[in-house]
Amino acid sequence: MMTANHAQAMSSRVLCQVGLVVKDIEKSARAYADLFGLDVPAWTLTDPEDTAHTRYQGQPSPARAKLAFFSLGSVSLELIEPVGGPSTWQEFLTTRGEGVHHIAFEIEDMAGEVRMLAEKGMPLVQRGDYSGGQYAYIDSAAQLAVILELLQNDR
Amino acid sequence: MMTANHAQAMSSRVLCQVGLVVKDIEKSARAYADLFGLDVPAWTLTDPEDTAHTRYQGQPSPARAKLAFFSLGSVSLELIEPVGGPSTWQEFLTTRGEGVHHIAFEIEDMAGEVRMLAEKGMPLVQRGDYSGGQYAYIDSAAQLAVILELLQNDR
Repeated sequence: MMTANHAQAMSSRVLCQVGLVVKDIEKSARAYADLFGLDVPAWTLTDPEDTAHTRYQGQPSPARAKLAFFSLGSVSLELIEPVGGPSTWQEFLTTRGEGVHHIAFEIEDMAGEVRMLAEKGMPLVQRGDYSGGQYAYIDSAAQLAVILELLQNDR
Repeated sequence: MMTANHAQAMSSRVLCQVGLVVKDIEKSARAYADLFGLDVPAWTLTDPEDTAHTRYQGQPSPARAKLAFFSLGSVSLELIEPVGGPSTWQEFLTTRGEGVHHIAFEIEDMAGEVRMLAEKGMPLVQRGDYSGGQYAYIDSAAQLAVILELLQNDR
């Protein structure tokens, strides 16, 4: 066993979501619903730029996505179909095709966590607001083989 | 809301593991340990073919893998470095590079679940035994955008 430097670390170790980028959310939602014996969930569209304040690579972006969710134990499985761009979702679909885009953790100090991760060489790649909270995607693929998502919900 | 056919479905909806294929398990394990402020876990090597009875695409395979685990809430994060082949792990690394290879569910009737999934067009791609149980990987990427793993542990 080696001992890591624990001085700066994520405040949460509870994986709360697995996010998959797909080409056709209705087709994928039907496949998962059939797999699990569940009703097909309706998809929702992320908020437009003026509400979501979406920023990709530091610039405002009109990118949106269709989202659908399945509850699998304590983990939420999120299906994501990119709509327009530029976004981390669209970039993933273009460069890697369909697959698991991110794993998510709920945190309470977005600015502090983003700064800590940037100091570890994992910079912010996209952020946005949603009704009741905000999200941030972290460019951690080189280190962690997957993108991290931070979720901060309003109290 | 559309209604799915519930007649044949997975017996578990509890996502218990996320598996990532990586090139260098020691490097990846250090990165995750640093991220979460945990000690770096030791990796273990899967059993050899005569013990694990590894079969890939229906044929015996000498493929093995180095494995390391992190406990993230109720989900286990599994790091996998392929050692030799052929295997679903090696094929994923060759064709897609590092990334999330599978999501896993614990089930109790391996033969029945494998048959049900094959009837849905998702065939078995690899199976093997480990101390205390057995696993099966399902070629579900076309439908689900990720490989399924079934885990059945001895009672």
